Amino acid sequence: MSADARLQRLLDEAEIRDLLLAFAHALDDKDWGAYAATFTEDGVFEILGQRRVGRAEIAAGPARDLTRFDRTQHFSTNHVIALDGDTASARSYLLGVHLPDAGQPAQHADVGGTYRCECRRTDEGWKLSHVALEVWWSAGAEFAIEDAPAATTR
Amino acid sequence: MSADARLQRLLDEAEIRDLLLAFAHALDDKDWGAYAATFTEDGVFEILGQRRVGRAEIAAGPARDLTRFDRTQHFSTNHVIALDGDTASARSYLLGVHLPDAGQPAQHADVGGTYRCECRRTDEGWKLSHVALEVWWSAGAEFAIEDAPAATTR
Amino acid sequence: MSADARLQRLLDEAEIRDLLLAFAHALDDKDWGAYAATFTEDGVFEILGQRRVGRAEIAAGPARDLTRFDRTQHFSTNHVIALDGDTASARSYLLGVHLPDAGQPAQHADVGGTYRCECRRTDEGWKLSHVALEVWWSAGAEFAIEDAPAATTR
Repeated sequence: MSADARLQRLLDEAEIRDLLLAFAHALDDKDWGAYAATFTEDGVFEILGQRRVGRAEIAAGPARDLTRFDRTQHFSTNHVIALDGDTASARSYLLGVHLPDAGQPAQHADVGGTYRCECRRTDEGWKLSHVALEVWWSAGAEFAIEDAPAATTR
Repeated sequence: MSADARLQRLLDEAEIRDLLLAFAHALDDKDWGAYAATFTEDGVFEILGQRRVGRAEIAAGPARDLTRFDRTQHFSTNHVIALDGDTASARSYLLGVHLPDAGQPAQHADVGGTYRCECRRTDEGWKLSHVALEVWWSAGAEFAIEDAPAATTR
Repeated sequence: MSADARLQRLLDEAEIRDLLLAFAHALDDKDWGAYAATFTEDGVFEILGQRRVGRAEIAAGPARDLTRFDRTQHFSTNHVIALDGDTASARSYLLGVHLPDAGQPAQHADVGGTYRCECRRTDEGWKLSHVALEVWWSAGAEFAIEDAPAATTR
């Protein structure tokens, strides 16, 4: 592989890592528009039996599930990225902390799990085309997502 | 952007990521000199209402707050770095574990939060010029910092 | 340092980071062959008083210790890598979560600690030649490893 190709591979990996972190931080910033913009227009997000298709449905999810928390923190680690031209798959680990009341910092609902992601290079840079979250464990208070409007439970 | 400029960007980001980790590991190694050396001479660190200015005050902080713990572990994740020439801003997530007695590994005071950092390129490489820690949540035993000498509470 | 040498340094660091993550994910995938393959043929792994030498003994360890867990999650963070030609040392942080029953997600044994690693460049890429895990803390249910066959306790 040429030096240029090897440099490009590092740049692609760095951009996809930044994409995974932008996804996490948009949730913690409660910026649902920025969150949806980490996906392609036809992106899909799967969580706890719900399948959300397209940016509008994807943005509606955390607006429904996370607004009741004063504060969340999505630790994102173990980024493993496999490039394949203009697509890539990525895996990452989540430790998510959810505080109903920021003034009660010892009260939180924690979950751990993994994201399995497909990514696509677009005119706007790398985007998530498909993300599936598997929740593996919990700690502290219970975390659950809201029922989706009927149309989004497929 | 030229290949050289893109390579330089990756190198700068890698060095700043290493700086954030050096900050964390110096705390866990109880090497307050190494900790202070991650800051510029005129660096500022803000934590829980205290504002520490300059390397001497910055080194005195963990010497006061962490010496009573046999062991600490500062997990540092979610490094988001925005370069701007010879300065950069960086955000990271902290999961901090504090053990009063290493022989009692189930007894610890945990905190989660975020660091917001400003960095500057110096003759000694990238350094932290300003770091503010926001503590978001806690678990287990209580963690608190010591009162600072009057002069350092501003 | 030439641009080529600086690029090579970034590539080596990226490969070693991927190696640390492959180690973690092989454990969580219960792929003991893939786990052993992250080590050199003569690799050594030290954990809780056991010293496992060579890929066969190294693979036997998690087969003995982790099979009783339905699910594990090895968060791997704080990767600090020091290259020295065809060898490197690396340090990383572990948050390990162990679930006896995936259907009881609130029941788990957690541990925190650090890996100190020596790495070697081989014909198959970077491999771990020596890894020592220090366990620093625990939470939730107790985690312990099984007694090794006599030959592997040295």
